[in-house]
Amino acid sequence: MNKVGYIQFKPILGDQNANIMQIEKLLGKALGSELIVFPELANSGYNFASRNDAVMYSEEISKSIFVEFLVSSAKKYNTNIVCGVNERVGEKLFNTTVLVGPNGYIGKYQKIHLFLNEKDIFETGSVGLPVFDIGFCKTSMLICFDYLFPEVWRIVGMNGADIVCHPSNLITTNAQKCVPAQAFMNKMFVITANRYGTESDITFSGNSFITNPDAIIIDKASPDSDAVYIIDIDIAEARNKMVTSRNHVFNDRKPDVYLGLT
Amino acid sequence: MNKVGYIQFKPILGDQNANIMQIEKLLGKALGSELIVFPELANSGYNFASRNDAVMYSEEISKSIFVEFLVSSAKKYNTNIVCGVNERVGEKLFNTTVLVGPNGYIGKYQKIHLFLNEKDIFETGSVGLPVFDIGFCKTSMLICFDYLFPEVWRIVGMNGADIVCHPSNLITTNAQKCVPAQAFMNKMFVITANRYGTESDITFSGNSFITNPDAIIIDKASPDSDAVYIIDIDIAEARNKMVTSRNHVFNDRKPDVYLGLT
Repeated sequence: MNKVGYIQFKPILGDQNANIMQIEKLLGKALGSELIVFPELANSGYNFASRNDAVMYSEEISKSIFVEFLVSSAKKYNTNIVCGVNERVGEKLFNTTVLVGPNGYIGKYQKIHLFLNEKDIFETGSVGLPVFDIGFCKTSMLICFDYLFPEVWRIVGMNGADIVCHPSNLITTNAQKCVPAQAFMNKMFVITANRYGTESDITFSGNSFITNPDAIIIDKASPDSDAVYIIDIDIAEARNKMVTSRNHVFNDRKPDVYLGLT
Repeated sequence: MNKVGYIQFKPILGDQNANIMQIEKLLGKALGSELIVFPELANSGYNFASRNDAVMYSEEISKSIFVEFLVSSAKKYNTNIVCGVNERVGEKLFNTTVLVGPNGYIGKYQKIHLFLNEKDIFETGSVGLPVFDIGFCKTSMLICFDYLFPEVWRIVGMNGADIVCHPSNLITTNAQKCVPAQAFMNKMFVITANRYGTESDITFSGNSFITNPDAIIIDKASPDSDAVYIIDIDIAEARNKMVTSRNHVFNDRKPDVYLGLT
């Protein structure tokens, strides 16, 4: 068994120092976890008044105080951390998640499917859909609205992800309608770490949840308060891709019939 | 608004005449429907003792007494009917559904994803994933275990299906974990028409259901008795593919990132 979980909190718009302090405080309640997932854009908040504001609250990963803090935290607590970061690359911004572990920075994912006004701020992700081997499991990252596109779940599943980390700034509970099916159809665990709180006209929905490969939702977080939740999971459940003695979720696919899907 | 629905019943293994009589009786309770969906393999039953038995209980569509009966019923009741048929094509068998309407035979679909021992009896479907225009809507067909493969929902959705007819011989309620997400992610209606009853070691799970494009399940059938259910739906709900003012379930896809999915 392995201990994984999420931390739900309320990032403060444009106040990275406050967010670092809040994360530091909550991480102290997640002792023993091997993988802990934070919400989307946890360094910056979400509802920028302008693109200029978004730029001001962004960092380049290689020079990021926030990512450096995450790396030192992962070392301190001997855990892996996935966390949303407002990332600047030259003139461009990306809605990014980083994965860091006890040995340092591991990799990143950049959101592919941008929601509403994010289209005015961020570029479409440019690093594909990486899967990372972190020892006790293989993991990948999807961000918030990516959940609506079955293609990305399928790709990370077929590329070996046992656990999909799903940092989010959700405003509805529609993800709960979609994520369990994707967990079941690809036989993976999914950790959906949402934020809560209000930023001007947007209220985030909290209710972070973990879904197992049998589509069962473990729903322990409230809609509007901090939550630290760690659970024991058996990675073997995500490595058995048989749904009957003769049916395999990937090998039973019929790619010849799907031609033209992409 | 348009009236659509399903008829859940218990086909008798190897007794096509009994099945025709049962369907005729139940159709009389579905007056006014414009599209009515029956279970998988409704002419033959499911749990054949041998492939020879399956062959014995099959028909060629062009010479099928069963399909002829469906066509005459569709004319009599001025409706469209989707129904499962054990289809013989030369030496081969297919787990097929036919679509017939007031003007006669319209088309067929052959199951692509075969479940358990079906692999010893049937061929993989050879007619792709057709979508048919029946006037008040466009419709396509998937059969039972096909539900586990998000690719096929996506393909029929992108090809214009407003309603997916889903004749089934389900033995679990796992479809309820997967179908609503597919209805939501592609913004379609789904009519899952299941059978009930036991054939030697297999008990079918009934609980036929209709899912709307918002992932809401309308679950009115029992696990173990006949059910005739007709509902008014607004096809426009399946033609609005926007999930926000700036997000479209198909146009927001990023095919360049999905390369290699098939």
